[in-house]
Amino acid sequence: MNEAKSYTLGTLADLLEVRLEGDGDCRIDGLATLSQGHPGKLSFLSNPAYVHQLADCRASAVILEEKFAAACPVNKLISAAPYLTFARATRLFDNTSVSSWGIHSSAVVHPTAELGEGVSIGPNAVIEAGVRLGVNCSVGAGSFVGENCRLGDNCRLHSNVTLYHGVTFGANVIIHSGAVIGADGFGFAFDGEKSVKIHQLGSVHIGDDVEVGAGSTIDRGAIEDTIIEQGVKIDNQVQIGHNCRIGAHTVICGCTAIAGSAVIGRYCVLGGASGVVGHISIGDRVRVGAMSLVSQSISEAGDYASGTGIDSTARWRRNIVRFSQLDELARRLRKLESKAQSPGETGRKQSEE
Amino acid sequence: MNEAKSYTLGTLADLLEVRLEGDGDCRIDGLATLSQGHPGKLSFLSNPAYVHQLADCRASAVILEEKFAAACPVNKLISAAPYLTFARATRLFDNTSVSSWGIHSSAVVHPTAELGEGVSIGPNAVIEAGVRLGVNCSVGAGSFVGENCRLGDNCRLHSNVTLYHGVTFGANVIIHSGAVIGADGFGFAFDGEKSVKIHQLGSVHIGDDVEVGAGSTIDRGAIEDTIIEQGVKIDNQVQIGHNCRIGAHTVICGCTAIAGSAVIGRYCVLGGASGVVGHISIGDRVRVGAMSLVSQSISEAGDYASGTGIDSTARWRRNIVRFSQLDELARRLRKLESKAQSPGETGRKQSEE
Amino acid sequence: MNEAKSYTLGTLADLLEVRLEGDGDCRIDGLATLSQGHPGKLSFLSNPAYVHQLADCRASAVILEEKFAAACPVNKLISAAPYLTFARATRLFDNTSVSSWGIHSSAVVHPTAELGEGVSIGPNAVIEAGVRLGVNCSVGAGSFVGENCRLGDNCRLHSNVTLYHGVTFGANVIIHSGAVIGADGFGFAFDGEKSVKIHQLGSVHIGDDVEVGAGSTIDRGAIEDTIIEQGVKIDNQVQIGHNCRIGAHTVICGCTAIAGSAVIGRYCVLGGASGVVGHISIGDRVRVGAMSLVSQSISEAGDYASGTGIDSTARWRRNIVRFSQLDELARRLRKLESKAQSPGETGRKQSEE
Repeated sequence: MNEAKSYTLGTLADLLEVRLEGDGDCRIDGLATLSQGHPGKLSFLSNPAYVHQLADCRASAVILEEKFAAACPVNKLISAAPYLTFARATRLFDNTSVSSWGIHSSAVVHPTAELGEGVSIGPNAVIEAGVRLGVNCSVGAGSFVGENCRLGDNCRLHSNVTLYHGVTFGANVIIHSGAVIGADGFGFAFDGEKSVKIHQLGSVHIGDDVEVGAGSTIDRGAIEDTIIEQGVKIDNQVQIGHNCRIGAHTVICGCTAIAGSAVIGRYCVLGGASGVVGHISIGDRVRVGAMSLVSQSISEAGDYASGTGIDSTARWRRNIVRFSQLDELARRLRKLESKAQSPGETGRKQSEE
Repeated sequence: MNEAKSYTLGTLADLLEVRLEGDGDCRIDGLATLSQGHPGKLSFLSNPAYVHQLADCRASAVILEEKFAAACPVNKLISAAPYLTFARATRLFDNTSVSSWGIHSSAVVHPTAELGEGVSIGPNAVIEAGVRLGVNCSVGAGSFVGENCRLGDNCRLHSNVTLYHGVTFGANVIIHSGAVIGADGFGFAFDGEKSVKIHQLGSVHIGDDVEVGAGSTIDRGAIEDTIIEQGVKIDNQVQIGHNCRIGAHTVICGCTAIAGSAVIGRYCVLGGASGVVGHISIGDRVRVGAMSLVSQSISEAGDYASGTGIDSTARWRRNIVRFSQLDELARRLRKLESKAQSPGETGRKQSEE
Repeated sequence: MNEAKSYTLGTLADLLEVRLEGDGDCRIDGLATLSQGHPGKLSFLSNPAYVHQLADCRASAVILEEKFAAACPVNKLISAAPYLTFARATRLFDNTSVSSWGIHSSAVVHPTAELGEGVSIGPNAVIEAGVRLGVNCSVGAGSFVGENCRLGDNCRLHSNVTLYHGVTFGANVIIHSGAVIGADGFGFAFDGEKSVKIHQLGSVHIGDDVEVGAGSTIDRGAIEDTIIEQGVKIDNQVQIGHNCRIGAHTVICGCTAIAGSAVIGRYCVLGGASGVVGHISIGDRVRVGAMSLVSQSISEAGDYASGTGIDSTARWRRNIVRFSQLDELARRLRKLESKAQSPGETGRKQSEE
């Protein structure tokens, strides 16, 4: 959309800190998958399952491991971690213009707000009293930053983001459109007739290098803050309840729901549309499958899942009927086993369970 | 709320292209369900289960099939497809005023944007550089249209919609409030310590006649575009990951989560809160049940489901305990069967499995 | 963030209508959990599981039941319902400043809108024609209130909320950021080739004292209104389809999906990420577990659930294979039982089922 970026392969090898095998003057103006590469493009081989595509590769160059170099008919960038090298290359070819509105004339910025050098505030954004934005922060069009929020350097709020009052960020935090940080946690006390609101007096703290996807919501704590530690990556439409703590570098895939006061470890991966019930703990390096519900604490690292496999609805219907009888089926099995253990007594003790 | 629309029954029969049995001068000023109809209203019978309600119908007229006409005591509009005729009638009675702000004085429109004839831009909307809007496009209040987006004719963005840069639409696309199109796909490469962002260089293309519900999110592709083909209908709070392709006329019910790089066929129906894992393919005319997870590719048309039925929590708890023992139960059953096959050997070979 | 509120313990006892045991002049400037309390803070004991924490309590005072008073070494506020008293105390210590912009100069308010006394309209909010806002209503920055919406007294829309046309509220309704009320219900009639839109002619009515969480969506009815009765509490990212009726004082936890035309009783609790299919009824005081799908009507009060427990992925994989064979396993069990009943006939009748 904007002017494409372009590099020689030699320059790319230097910037990506990998070894070039081939023509350093070859011009590269973009990235492509292995199967859709064509001249001028740089492709990559990360998953060995696609190694057979190398033979027909039409890209000008491929990022790959040394061991696959011989199978590659075009220029090569040799990397011990091709996917990581590819990630770094995407940054070089990203031609998104970062809007620099300065402080747009239609933005409403409270006079007590402190804006670091290089801050950009988009059209119709609102910055309330007592806000502090670090250097080079960018607030997208229509975004709202509530009273006394404090953002570190280089944070980016895309358009139509909402931060309630008192939210604090480290540096390099990215929040995508429609996300809401710091809304009231869902807390009520029942008085026998109706729900009485528990005012949520804590806030939300988000550490360095966190990214939050579009439409995600992170609630403020009831008394203390909800905490998202550094390096956590949160996909779209994720819900994080009040008082949660999400450990550093954990990855949370789209549509996951985490109930209040859950504590999640470091380097976890929560699969898409998974769930975590409230007031439980999950240790470090726990991986949860898609649409699985973590209904109790997990201390041991490893892979976990719940649910059933997909099946034709006709077969599935028969099986869920049996699921509803499962305890009874197990008891009947137990009874048969007892009989089989004492073959001389078949037909007796039928009421033992 | 606005002035009600009103037609004679004869005019309605002409507009809806159905046959009238009854009084063509009868005045109709709105629609009603069969059970709640009253004079002046037009009702419809689509599901034969409600045929018994005809006798007590107080509406002025009913849309129904020929075969039910005799049971209907009021005026009739005879249709081979009553639900479809009803759908067309809703259009005639829709009295929502389409706001025509022209270009509202508070909107921020970049001078390089190209606006087709009849375009309406609501208050505080933002249109960035290089945007092209087809004729009669309407952008709601507070919506943001990023750099170089291209929308076909008659597209409608409701209020507070966000389009990131470079998103392209066909004609007649409707996007409801809070939806976010073109946010970054969720892609990271792990370097052993932290997640390194894969910049998302593709965009999103949405075909003709697509509708996207409130709060839904469709991410931009990593390298190529995420594609939504023509006629796809997407309900609220649906998440579609990067690089997906959704086939024409597929219907996606609310809160469904589709992970990245999934390819879904034409004329599929994904039930509410269902899920699709990444990198799989679903063929044409596949129907997925509510809250079911499609965990592997499906090539054959038909109905599919996963999960278990709802039950009292007490019974359910007993059954999920048995589910966790299911493989063991099956092995014990197998053992009993082996014994039963060789009745003379009961009590032996107990350790065979 | 703002100036902390502070009370003497004697004043608090009066305001909370509970009995003080201890020093009425003791100054309290905030709330704390039992384990994190320190001088100046008021804590509470609601769950008897934490009674052992009393001994080490460093808070200045604790709200608790009479029966635990002896175990409490600090000042006491004696309450028959400590959690409820705590909820009331949070209100006293809430120091969030309610922005009072008056009618902000950047807001776009249609001249036909009727604004009650004390109404506050934030920056860049849009109020369309025919809107009526009751006394002391507050509309947050960037929020949109569509044509002819009617809000009772003391309603609060946080920032970036969207109300489509014709939505009506009782009094004291709170809507959090990103929520969308009154978008089109998801209704289409299939004409054999494509989906034909059913225009949604109803609206949404929300009763007194309802709270709706961030990013939640409630669709307008097809013909009649979608109804949320008084006192309902809705968490974040909840989806409520068209034509639903949610009974008074029901609590709906985050990420729950309720399909169209579902009718839910009073005083129900829908757990997080649960689902309700369309066109069914749920009676009063039904409680649904997290991530459970209500796939059929429930008339009897009580607790319900679906799904399976979390397990290691390795074990889970073996068990879901068996789940897919469950009907067959049950038939094989039945066959074995038949044999066991007639031990002399082992080996015969194998094809009976």
